[in-house]
Order: sequence, then structure tokens, then C-alpha cells
Amino acid sequence: MKFNYKQMETLFKPKSVAIFGATPKSEKVGNVIIKNFIEEKYQGKIYPINPKYDEVLGIKCYKNINQIKEKIDLAIFAIPSKYIPLAFEQSAKKGVKSAIIISGGFKEAGHKDYEDKIKELSAKYNILVVGPNCLGVLDPYSNVDSIFLPMYKMQRPSKGNISFVTQSGAVAACLVDMIADQGIGLSKFISYGNAAVLNESDFLEFLANDKKTDIIILYIEGTTDGRQLLNTMKKVSKKKPIIVLKAGRGKKGSQTAHSHTGNLAGNYLAYQAAFRQAKVIEANDLDELFDFVKIFNQPLPKGKRIGVITDGGGLGVLTADNIEKYRMELADLTEDMKKKLNQILPFYASVNNPLDMAADAGFEEYEGTIEVFMNDPQIDILIIIVLFQAPAVDERILNLLIKYSNDKRKPIAVVASGGSYTKMYAKILDTNHVPVYDAPSSAVKAVMKMYKYSKFRGKIRK
Amino acid sequence: MKFNYKQMETLFKPKSVAIFGATPKSEKVGNVIIKNFIEEKYQGKIYPINPKYDEVLGIKCYKNINQIKEKIDLAIFAIPSKYIPLAFEQSAKKGVKSAIIISGGFKEAGHKDYEDKIKELSAKYNILVVGPNCLGVLDPYSNVDSIFLPMYKMQRPSKGNISFVTQSGAVAACLVDMIADQGIGLSKFISYGNAAVLNESDFLEFLANDKKTDIIILYIEGTTDGRQLLNTMKKVSKKKPIIVLKAGRGKKGSQTAHSHTGNLAGNYLAYQAAFRQAKVIEANDLDELFDFVKIFNQPLPKGKRIGVITDGGGLGVLTADNIEKYRMELADLTEDMKKKLNQILPFYASVNNPLDMAADAGFEEYEGTIEVFMNDPQIDILIIIVLFQAPAVDERILNLLIKYSNDKRKPIAVVASGGSYTKMYAKILDTNHVPVYDAPSSAVKAVMKMYKYSKFRGKIRK
Repeated sequence: MKFNYKQMETLFKPKSVAIFGATPKSEKVGNVIIKNFIEEKYQGKIYPINPKYDEVLGIKCYKNINQIKEKIDLAIFAIPSKYIPLAFEQSAKKGVKSAIIISGGFKEAGHKDYEDKIKELSAKYNILVVGPNCLGVLDPYSNVDSIFLPMYKMQRPSKGNISFVTQSGAVAACLVDMIADQGIGLSKFISYGNAAVLNESDFLEFLANDKKTDIIILYIEGTTDGRQLLNTMKKVSKKKPIIVLKAGRGKKGSQTAHSHTGNLAGNYLAYQAAFRQAKVIEANDLDELFDFVKIFNQPLPKGKRIGVITDGGGLGVLTADNIEKYRMELADLTEDMKKKLNQILPFYASVNNPLDMAADAGFEEYEGTIEVFMNDPQIDILIIIVLFQAPAVDERILNLLIKYSNDKRKPIAVVASGGSYTKMYAKILDTNHVPVYDAPSSAVKAVMKMYKYSKFRGKIRK
Repeated sequence: MKFNYKQMETLFKPKSVAIFGATPKSEKVGNVIIKNFIEEKYQGKIYPINPKYDEVLGIKCYKNINQIKEKIDLAIFAIPSKYIPLAFEQSAKKGVKSAIIISGGFKEAGHKDYEDKIKELSAKYNILVVGPNCLGVLDPYSNVDSIFLPMYKMQRPSKGNISFVTQSGAVAACLVDMIADQGIGLSKFISYGNAAVLNESDFLEFLANDKKTDIIILYIEGTTDGRQLLNTMKKVSKKKPIIVLKAGRGKKGSQTAHSHTGNLAGNYLAYQAAFRQAKVIEANDLDELFDFVKIFNQPLPKGKRIGVITDGGGLGVLTADNIEKYRMELADLTEDMKKKLNQILPFYASVNNPLDMAADAGFEEYEGTIEVFMNDPQIDILIIIVLFQAPAVDERILNLLIKYSNDKRKPIAVVASGGSYTKMYAKILDTNHVPVYDAPSSAVKAVMKMYKYSKFRGKIRK
């Protein structure tokens, strides 16, 4: 089946949705899903399908899809796998354009026959399929949400420009939950599980052309088509950064992955080579993935020279250590810059890079020094460390960081580490597209990844 | 001056404290400090000293220390450095046993003369000195708290068994704030800054004998006495684990460190060799430090074979990857174990290690499988992954994890990753000494460090 952009859109903004397995019984997958559509105010029509009920959560319920007179764009399946081939065929004949199969119990559990049937029907009737054995789709713009994890347990992100393609549901749930909690927005989320029909490459290609997506995350254990994946990644990463987390890297890990979604994780070295060739940004774990994604809302740097501003000496030292470790550069301060900085800071401050303003630095010191660093061509990237614990630091510094981050002159990364007070401020920054890190190493690693991507995109000054 | 255990205790549980620079003006260092003593209900006597006031926050204020008739155990200095030598001398003559000098403006700012004077007076009158240029001491047992960061900005930890010796104030503030926010308790905190008199080795030695301390954290940029540090670390780490974060590792970083507390950061290779020799556990950044510390509340493992239990397949795969990466071992499951596990899990679950129970696993599945892993001699360490987002997971799993963690049969690490709901549960676990990690790699790294320390302590089964 060929990839069709317009048809793909029916997964993300369908005019009508049929939910197989919708039920009033809470804790059932089909209950969580229909609740999502109701509570998140999905604007299209909802058709619960369950032979046991005439009504589910106040909405008329159908015995089967044939009873529905209106057209259905999207069918979501949350019923045992053995019932799915028939229900799918009925949906196909009814003219459904796309399907999300949440249920497991297919290839990964020894039922290749069910999965083959879906493939066959999908090809015959031209139906796009996400899954089986997945969380499906989440789109904060249309409020399509087939994630069967209750909203009070897993937060949903606001509208944003990051899209996420993922093989595993669990990893995805954790990351989306983290993103939402941090106030970061999402464009589209696709958990595709066994990839019976649509695979990671199809989604990457779709997202490359999606206007609401600027940054793409990919979590992958194994692919069914490595050649297609390499070619797609190559094409897409020229337009948008792709950040990838590959699981099943080791021998044991790849065996584990096989029993998880039934796909071979393959040789990690081959994947690594492909990632390098395609200039895809690789993360080593969930936390790194999260760290790397945030930085790409900043403008790409024109070089690798970093200016560090801090009100805590030790944090400046740790940042300098990591700049050396990750082969970035601490910018040299010109005499002109030093003069300007000396006018802003008290006489006892040592004007160097990292610029340690000491714990009594407040709004004026941050504003003055950031402005100097922003204007000087010696500085390509700013890392700004703020001890929100310090008495002299107040809310105005938030405004300052948001302002400088949004004027997009140079990329900024902020380091703010601490407890609930600091986390509250960090969330405000993240919500406003200022990337915040709780350790200097995380900030430096993220800007290093961005620098490399900038080089690939030809943005480095000659 | 020789190290004297009894006298050292006057820093942590003085019967009386004089606070130079106490003031009613909020945001002043001296105001935050006296507030700490009042609001945290320090049980000894407080004597504010400030010539400008007759009373500070309702407590009688003195012009100078000579006006106080009673004996003073501890003097805290939060006044400009130029006034300190005289005030210190008066305190010395008055018979003060120990001093904390918060103020900067000494060696690190070109005033070696002030610092030399303090050293001289300290030796002459036998006074222990913490600082200058530091945050001083925090002891949740006695409520001594000289940290000048307001409590609403930096949380104070509850009583615990972790002690923290730190050169930098900023790094320390962030970590203590993180620890407190996560519900982890602290025994003693010492930020020693320029180390004019007492240095890191003195504190390590003191903590080795402190009954309330089981785990020691050390943040260091540079030492004035490397030989003493090596010997002390060697001695202390045979009794208690020391987790160290060394800043000023690179060339630039070490220059930055020099201007920070005036001490040479020295050659990192020499430090690294010393850490290895002394079997000190090195962390690379704040977040790692935090991760490593938590694991040491668990019993030391008798081997390196890890059993992994998960309700999210992808997270199991990532854990397996990291076990291979960090050269730990995935335990082989015996036929006997497999039989027992098959009785607990539904027929479609794949009984392997990692044990992927899939998203419908609840209390019974966790209880049953943990019990099997706990009892089997094949398993040395348990990593338990819990998707708190999953509908089948409820509060009872918290109780389970706390129970198994507290019976101390085998070390447990939990992975729980997500947003505010998961974080709420993670905090409950941390408060109850169950180490929780938000990424598989962090958990595996931490147990690897614990395994190595266990080997050094001769706890590995022959």
C-alpha cells in the first residue's frame, strides 16, 4: 500500500470515530479510551460499539459497525484479538479509512495468523492501520486520544511542535507523561506496536510534511525494513531533527525486544551506522531523549563557542568540565567584553568564562551580562545557570530568560537544579520554550547534539 | 591543630550560638540565618550580635560578643570580611569552641591576610573553623542551620543517615534541595568553602565515627592536602561508602575552580587514581551523585546477577541493554523459577529475564514474582519497573515495594518514570528508603556502583 498524506490525516483528525470495546466498566481499556474522547472534547462524532450495551457513558452504543448509518473515518479496536479480524472486515466493507488496533494477542503472542489477516484486509480495502499491540494515537490539536492510561495517571501534553513515533507503549507513556508534566507541548504521538501495516518510516515521512511538527522523536526496538528506515531518516533529517532512542542494543536486550513486539532488534552496529549516516541524534535513555528534545526549540548555533553565566561557582566549574569533556569550546572573552562586564558586576567579581557573578547576583546582573554575551560575536551558545535558591534571584529573571530565548538570536540553555521551588520555576521556563536542565552535563550534552545537527544542516559560520 | 571529636560536635549540637550580622532586614544573609534557628526550633540559646539593633526578631541583640555573659559554643559570622578578624579574636578570647564563617572576601578575593589571621587565631585559641566563603552547617537533628538560602526557596531535608561534605555552596544547595524534595533524609551537611582550618579530610574522619551517618557524599574542587585526603578516604571507605563528585576536572574547569575558592584543583588524573585506590565511588554530575547515594540504603549485594521485573516491555529492553553496557549480568532463570512464575502469570506472558508481565499486571503479579526472585539464589539484585500509569497498578504496590525493601534480604532498585502522578508515588518510595529512578540506565549504573563497593567490602559470595 502506498503512503497517502490525506488518508493519513484521518488518523489524526477524523470526522468520526468508532470505538470497538467501549464500555461503562472503568479500568477497562475501552472505557478509558471513550472517556478520553468525551473528556478531552473531541469535536467529531463518537460511535461506541459493544453488543452488551445500548448506551455507554450517555452515548448510543451499537452492536456492530453495520448498524451505524453515518460514515466512519477511524475505527479503534479495544477487543480481544480473536474478534478483531471479523470486526475489521466489517469495518473495511463499511468504508472506514483508517484503524488503530490497541489490543495485543497478535504476532508477539504467537498469533501471526490474525496479523496476516489484518494485513491482507488492509491491502484489499486500502485501510491504514496503526498497531496492533500499541497505544495508538494522541493529537492535542484534534483531541484524538486512544491511550488507555487514565488521564489522572498519565498527563496529556498541551499543543506543541514535537511529534513522537514509538514502538513501545510503556516507554512512550513515560516520556509523554514527563513532557506533559514539564509543560512541554506535543503535536502528534503515534505508538505503532507490531507495525503490521504502517511502520516507523511511514510516520516519519508523514511528519516531515506535517506543518505542526518541528522536532521528531523516534523510539525503536527493531524494524521490519531497515533499508526503508535508513532512506527515510536521511530524507527527513534534512528537514527536521530526529532524536532516536534505540532499545535492544545488547545481545540480551535484543532477545528481550523480540518477545516484546515480535520484531527482530537486529544488529545494533548496523543501526548505529544508519543513525550516523542519516544524521539522526541518538539518545541513550529516556532522560537523555527528554534532554535532547527540549534544546531544539532554540535556534541552531553558528558555532561551538559557549559562554557560561552563573551565580554559583561550583556549577560553573562543572559546566566547564563538561564543555571540555564533550569537545565544545569555552569562548574567550575579548577585552571589550571584559570592560563591559566589569561595569555591570561588583569590583570583586572575577570576569572570566564561566562568568561567576556569585550568589548576590540579581536581575540587573543577569540582564546586563546576558546582553553582553548575546551581542558579542565571540559567543555562539549561552548556558545560563540560575540558583533560584539564592535570595537575590526573583521572578523577573524568568521574564528575562523567556525574552532572550524567544528573540531567537542565539541558543540558550538554562541550568536550574533543586527542589520544588526551583522545579516550579523550571516548569514555567520549559512551558515558554526555554530549555532547562537540572545538571550541567545534561545541558552541555544537549547543546553539543544541537551543534552537530547545525553543522549537518550547514548553519555553522564559515 | 589536632582533630578532636568532642569539640567537633560543638559545630553540630552547640548549646549556644552567637550570630554576628543577625538583622531584621529580610534578604540579608544574617536575617535568613537567625530565622532558620528560630523557625526550625533550635533548642539551644541564640545570641544575635549587631551594633545597630537592641533586638532582632524578638530576641535581645548584643553590640559585641563581650556583652554576652553566658558561655558560647558556636559563633557564626555573617558580616563583611574586614570586620571578621577582630570579631573572631573577641570570640576566641571569650572562649568560643567553634566558628562558622559564612562571608566571602578572603583568599578567593585577594585577602589572604584576613584568612591567615583566622588561621593564626584558630591555632592560638584552639577554635574549630568552618569556612570562610561557605554555607556552613545544617543538622536536621539539632536544627543548627547556617544556610543563608531562605527555606521557601531551598527545602530542608528531614532527619536521615546521609552526610554531605562540600566545598561549593551552590552545588550543595542544589543537591540538598533535591534530596529534601525527594523526601530523603540527611544527617549532617558541611559546606566548608576555603577550608582555612578544617578541610574535607577532617570532616570525613569525623563522619566515619558519627553514628547517625551511614553514607557520605563529598563534593570537592581541590584540596590543600592531597596526601591527607587519600589516607583519610582509604580509612573511611572501609567503614562507610563515600560518593564523590570532583569538579575542576578539565583544564578550563580547574582554572575556574581556582578563582572560585582559591584552591588549586590540581591534576584530575591524580584525583582519579586516589579515588580508585581508596575505593571511593565517583559520580560525574549532580544527577549521578543523587542517583548513587540513594542505592546505598539497600543491603550490599552478594553478586552481580540482576533479576528484572516489569509491566512495560520497552523499559525491560532498555534495562537489559544497560545491564550489558555496565557489565552486570542478567540472571538465568532456573526451570524451577520458571515453573513458579508460570503459575503466577497468565498463559500468554513470556517467562524470561527481564520478566515482562505486560500492562495488565497488578498487585498479585508483582507480589508473586518479587517473592520468587527474592527467594531464588540465582538472583543477587532486583530491578523492579513499575508503570504507575497502568490501570492495574495501585497503591498496594507501594506497600509491597516498601516491605521488600525494608526486609533487607536483597537490594532493590525501582524504575518509575513519568509525570506528577508517578512522581508523587516515587517520592513516597524514596521517603521510605526504596531507591527510585526515572530511567533504566540510572538504576543500572547505581546498582553497578553498589556491586563494586560490595566487592571491595568483601561481601560477594565465594
